[in-house]
Amino acid sequence: MPESKPAGDKIRLGMVGGGQGAFIGDVHRIAARLDNRYQLVAGALSSDAQRSYDSAAELGIAEDRAYTSFEQMAEAEAMRDDGIEAVIIVTPNHLHFAPAQAFIKAGIHVICDKPLTSSLEQAEQLQSFVDNSGLLFAVTYNYSGYPMVRQAKEMIAAGQLGNIRLVQIEYPQDWLATNVESSGQKQAAWRTDPTQAGMGGSIGDIGTHAFHLAEFVSGLEVSSLLADLSSFVDGRALDDNAHILLRYSNGARGSLWASQVAIGHENGLRIRVYGEKAGLEWFQEEPNQLCFTLLNEAKQIITRGSRAAGLSANLASRIPAGHPEGFLEGFANLYKDFADQILSRRDKKDSDISNSLVPTIADGVRGVRFIEKAVASSKAGSVWQSLD
Amino acid sequence: MPESKPAGDKIRLGMVGGGQGAFIGDVHRIAARLDNRYQLVAGALSSDAQRSYDSAAELGIAEDRAYTSFEQMAEAEAMRDDGIEAVIIVTPNHLHFAPAQAFIKAGIHVICDKPLTSSLEQAEQLQSFVDNSGLLFAVTYNYSGYPMVRQAKEMIAAGQLGNIRLVQIEYPQDWLATNVESSGQKQAAWRTDPTQAGMGGSIGDIGTHAFHLAEFVSGLEVSSLLADLSSFVDGRALDDNAHILLRYSNGARGSLWASQVAIGHENGLRIRVYGEKAGLEWFQEEPNQLCFTLLNEAKQIITRGSRAAGLSANLASRIPAGHPEGFLEGFANLYKDFADQILSRRDKKDSDISNSLVPTIADGVRGVRFIEKAVASSKAGSVWQSLD
Amino acid sequence: MPESKPAGDKIRLGMVGGGQGAFIGDVHRIAARLDNRYQLVAGALSSDAQRSYDSAAELGIAEDRAYTSFEQMAEAEAMRDDGIEAVIIVTPNHLHFAPAQAFIKAGIHVICDKPLTSSLEQAEQLQSFVDNSGLLFAVTYNYSGYPMVRQAKEMIAAGQLGNIRLVQIEYPQDWLATNVESSGQKQAAWRTDPTQAGMGGSIGDIGTHAFHLAEFVSGLEVSSLLADLSSFVDGRALDDNAHILLRYSNGARGSLWASQVAIGHENGLRIRVYGEKAGLEWFQEEPNQLCFTLLNEAKQIITRGSRAAGLSANLASRIPAGHPEGFLEGFANLYKDFADQILSRRDKKDSDISNSLVPTIADGVRGVRFIEKAVASSKAGSVWQSLD
Amino acid sequence: MPESKPAGDKIRLGMVGGGQGAFIGDVHRIAARLDNRYQLVAGALSSDAQRSYDSAAELGIAEDRAYTSFEQMAEAEAMRDDGIEAVIIVTPNHLHFAPAQAFIKAGIHVICDKPLTSSLEQAEQLQSFVDNSGLLFAVTYNYSGYPMVRQAKEMIAAGQLGNIRLVQIEYPQDWLATNVESSGQKQAAWRTDPTQAGMGGSIGDIGTHAFHLAEFVSGLEVSSLLADLSSFVDGRALDDNAHILLRYSNGARGSLWASQVAIGHENGLRIRVYGEKAGLEWFQEEPNQLCFTLLNEAKQIITRGSRAAGLSANLASRIPAGHPEGFLEGFANLYKDFADQILSRRDKKDSDISNSLVPTIADGVRGVRFIEKAVASSKAGSVWQSLD
Repeated sequence: MPESKPAGDKIRLGMVGGGQGAFIGDVHRIAARLDNRYQLVAGALSSDAQRSYDSAAELGIAEDRAYTSFEQMAEAEAMRDDGIEAVIIVTPNHLHFAPAQAFIKAGIHVICDKPLTSSLEQAEQLQSFVDNSGLLFAVTYNYSGYPMVRQAKEMIAAGQLGNIRLVQIEYPQDWLATNVESSGQKQAAWRTDPTQAGMGGSIGDIGTHAFHLAEFVSGLEVSSLLADLSSFVDGRALDDNAHILLRYSNGARGSLWASQVAIGHENGLRIRVYGEKAGLEWFQEEPNQLCFTLLNEAKQIITRGSRAAGLSANLASRIPAGHPEGFLEGFANLYKDFADQILSRRDKKDSDISNSLVPTIADGVRGVRFIEKAVASSKAGSVWQSLD
Repeated sequence: MPESKPAGDKIRLGMVGGGQGAFIGDVHRIAARLDNRYQLVAGALSSDAQRSYDSAAELGIAEDRAYTSFEQMAEAEAMRDDGIEAVIIVTPNHLHFAPAQAFIKAGIHVICDKPLTSSLEQAEQLQSFVDNSGLLFAVTYNYSGYPMVRQAKEMIAAGQLGNIRLVQIEYPQDWLATNVESSGQKQAAWRTDPTQAGMGGSIGDIGTHAFHLAEFVSGLEVSSLLADLSSFVDGRALDDNAHILLRYSNGARGSLWASQVAIGHENGLRIRVYGEKAGLEWFQEEPNQLCFTLLNEAKQIITRGSRAAGLSANLASRIPAGHPEGFLEGFANLYKDFADQILSRRDKKDSDISNSLVPTIADGVRGVRFIEKAVASSKAGSVWQSLD
Repeated sequence: MPESKPAGDKIRLGMVGGGQGAFIGDVHRIAARLDNRYQLVAGALSSDAQRSYDSAAELGIAEDRAYTSFEQMAEAEAMRDDGIEAVIIVTPNHLHFAPAQAFIKAGIHVICDKPLTSSLEQAEQLQSFVDNSGLLFAVTYNYSGYPMVRQAKEMIAAGQLGNIRLVQIEYPQDWLATNVESSGQKQAAWRTDPTQAGMGGSIGDIGTHAFHLAEFVSGLEVSSLLADLSSFVDGRALDDNAHILLRYSNGARGSLWASQVAIGHENGLRIRVYGEKAGLEWFQEEPNQLCFTLLNEAKQIITRGSRAAGLSANLASRIPAGHPEGFLEGFANLYKDFADQILSRRDKKDSDISNSLVPTIADGVRGVRFIEKAVASSKAGSVWQSLD
Repeated sequence: MPESKPAGDKIRLGMVGGGQGAFIGDVHRIAARLDNRYQLVAGALSSDAQRSYDSAAELGIAEDRAYTSFEQMAEAEAMRDDGIEAVIIVTPNHLHFAPAQAFIKAGIHVICDKPLTSSLEQAEQLQSFVDNSGLLFAVTYNYSGYPMVRQAKEMIAAGQLGNIRLVQIEYPQDWLATNVESSGQKQAAWRTDPTQAGMGGSIGDIGTHAFHLAEFVSGLEVSSLLADLSSFVDGRALDDNAHILLRYSNGARGSLWASQVAIGHENGLRIRVYGEKAGLEWFQEEPNQLCFTLLNEAKQIITRGSRAAGLSANLASRIPAGHPEGFLEGFANLYKDFADQILSRRDKKDSDISNSLVPTIADGVRGVRFIEKAVASSKAGSVWQSLD
């Protein structure tokens, strides 16, 4: 290894949004950094010039790559020999579409926060752009990165539960139990504003996570849904609670409950899947374990890193059993897997990513369709809506 | 206390059904015995004469009070000076109505298993009998007897949660995950047979428990429901899974999930109630604790018997905190409270029982209406049904 | 009723101590009543005549069998044709020896609370009385009555853990964290008074339970111990905390921690046993489950009443899995098993009870020896003491 | 980049040990990388030249800074203008002393794995070197980096528990339950070899962690200990289980149990502290919560990131409540805090680090003394040993 340019091996990364004070920008950066596969070298972190430079400086981004607009950044980076290979988009929902389009156009892979866009029309339009570009596009449904979520998916795919009958998923939180958006809480403000968040409140912010996870873990597709959306906090325009019944393509049924007013829950994403032979349960707040019960046998607690865990969990683990990995490590697994995709593309344009676990643009579109159909169902008085 | 005939103070009790091999008969008997308030002195335990005598003998019932028909028993006991004061009816659902009517006619108080009857028409007819009789009638929605369930009810009634927004209730089991009814499992056989169980499978067997508990704890009435009932096991005529959306009279919403095919759950009744100020959670398999969280404060684990528990929990407790009480003790609380009602009636015909926590005939009727409306909603393709 | 004589089948029972206001008296009575095997017909419930009569009346005991002294009761009952067959002794520790001796002398079986006596000398003397009498004598180390404790014992005896290496047992409580004995708390007053409790405070009240459970479950004998006893609350004469190291006859080691000042614990008895092949854990506050882990396999949660539970657990269970049984049911199992012993003696003087799980006088003596040795070790500065 | 020099702000870091295949090397690197405060620029990752180069290349270390000996590295780096400012030592225990000394001599701060050295003599010698050097020296007792551990420390320091009476700490694992060291498990091989591990087996590997945590959280010093060490696996030279009684300077007592043969435990570090007013409990496998109970009040579950958590927990947190942080994040907190110390030293030689939570050389020495005294106590038949 004469020239072993290790720095050169790292993927050159840019970021749109995520300046000082943003929560999710930091999460993406830590996730990208954790496994040492990326180098953040450019950013349009803020439209305010001073804030953009300051944020960039803090992150070790050179001054000349601290942009104030994503258009400028896409253009400039595309021209550089050492331009970014991928960009992270972490702006509010309504500002996903335009930058995503700009970077695709510039030939740069995209990692985009969820929900993909604020309308289904935009989502489908973007998908067609992406499909035509041959570029990679990840949507950060990050809960699919947890090792024991992948363990669950692997067990179901291997038939350990038999035919799936039921998928119960819930995602309760309580941080929007009062009208915090009117008291200057930035995170709350845009998420409860239809012009920024789109048509979904809790279903857009967390319901889509739950929806993706249900399909990801079960390996099934939701064929139709029926929703009852509520808005409990006075003056709130979007839903803060969603009760949704689901039917799956194989005849399985289930329900999805998402709430941001369920006091006592911090980030209570929980999935339970029941088949003809066994059932399993995973809870995001105790992510290192998976409960699995074969009919008429003792419940088993399968732990991350243990010998009872399978291949996909092990590939997504860094440290031994009993040493808890958390949210950031799960998130980082998406970045790690996406890095593999990017690196395989460096040499070979058509590398196959069909086995990858990284959520794609198609998953992103599906998430937006879920939101649109849920809103439509609820408005119509809770009637079944097809997702096909 | 010169003549203090303590034995005479015990309530003379009879039983219909519950002979050898019946599960729930034993539960009722232990519950009645636990606090030493009743004496089982008569029974129509089986229609088979020998089995009726043998079962009676085992239970210390005199031979001449071991009947082979409830009609005969009601008539004979009504004639005796030392005749039974109350009767327990623990036959399959379709055999609740006739004996209940017979004992009411005979002037004997009734304790009846749930669901009250196999049709709403019968239920309402029975209610009118009971109301006209002035007699006491308890329906054993026994989960309302758990101390920490009553604690939850008390806290909500006291406004500790503020206005209620959400009630989430679920009752998953797994004992009917396969077709055990065809292999001679007696408990399964009648519960899955429409001619014995009525129109509800899982919703009749456990869904009504969940429904009662939701209203009991929240202090609210369900105003409408929307149901999606399923039957997953081949050849099963009745539902073994129910997804139900609920709306409450005060605007609160919620969902109810009952399942008997959810592998990994034994008797997983769980209720969660969320108000504007706080949320709480109770789980039947760990019945001695109640989780309570005020918005933005640490979650509290309130335990039975502790100083953090309130009056109604303490009245329903027998032993100190940390010494778990279970299902039988909770069940026994219904018997204990019903004993108080009976004793107060011994002297005074019109004693007020409006403050009692024992589920009444009205609760029983409501439970049957719930079943009927759930079936109707599901058959119509999941449409809202009013419960008023 | 010529042949059936069901009432006659019940064992005629008396009680010494346990009058109004006593906690443990009620527990014994409920436990005896739960399975309908006993009838309480006599009592020396209090030395105060009025209180004795009143307590008796409340319990349905006839006036002429409400005694004011145990001597009188033993004598009178021994003379009656329908005299008691067994007596429960639930007085404070220092008042176990004399009544136990009196009833043995009167030919009446004894059920005695723990610790057996307040000195080892008395304990051994009593054992010799009992052994010579041929009578049955149970000591209510009631935690051995829990189904899943018996499950643990059965699994270890069957070699499922391999050779045992470690036994960790702890029993923390917090009700004596302050000087409640000086503020009129009766239960605390006698337990902290050496003249009534004997030489052990927490080790007598709860440490002996833990000690018995360790030997009962593991099937091993403790060969030596080393203790560090403390008294944290000002003015308290007896230990309220005990740290004890244990060595077992087979070379296994372990520790026992008993505390009545460990704030946050209600009745936190927990046992963990580790062998060469597997480990298990049982916790009294969640008594219906047993955790079991084979090396390199997933942890299993074995539940009472489930198909994963074995024979001895099932024999000690009344209701299905998921329907929690608690402290009273566990306690009642001792009564149920003791009833079997008594009934087998009715006909046959020398019936073999060696397979019974009911703690015997020998276990009682061992418990007092444990206390004496622990006190001796601690006084000597924590030196090893042999228990042989 | 005239003023911003962000890369220059990162601390230049080297590593000794931790080449390919080492577990703990990776952990340190991720921990150092997580918060973007360090840049790994040099390493003596292996004494094998090729392996050293390969490992370095993988990590992005330039070829000329991939050393094959720590002596060479210390010398060379000390000469460079851009030489490392701190070094991580992650070799087996017996290879801590020499490199630590070399880097101290070269004026480079040290981060050293635990236990500090394999003898107390070396530890004290090293402490005197360090003290004279004025350099910074961290020992990675990493469990002290968990937010809720710091929360516990803060609450105790603030008097929320009152005077501390009891500290119970345990650290069970099961990965050495069989003789894995003889089957080529590298991690096991050196840890069970006295020539590499020193005199402590389980007490050195995990017991010292527990010991440090007990003092760190309680704010107390252990004044004496009494130990019973065992070696259960055939052919194992060092202890694989330790039962230790502890006495603290303020009169508090406690026990420490460390085991590597306790089947069913992965990394079960648990600390419980009881004071006159309250008790608390923290468990490493569920690190985001702390249980806290005030006498006679409901148990509280305080969670990381919530409003119930205090300053020191919040400073050590990155993401909101309900988004679990784990082992790596806790470990990273030591690196983050140590970075603050290093940066404050860049300008000012005598910056005060007395408030820092990073374990120091003094803690390291104390840990080695603990091992030595535990071994001595056990060898002498379990006698009290002073730690002063």
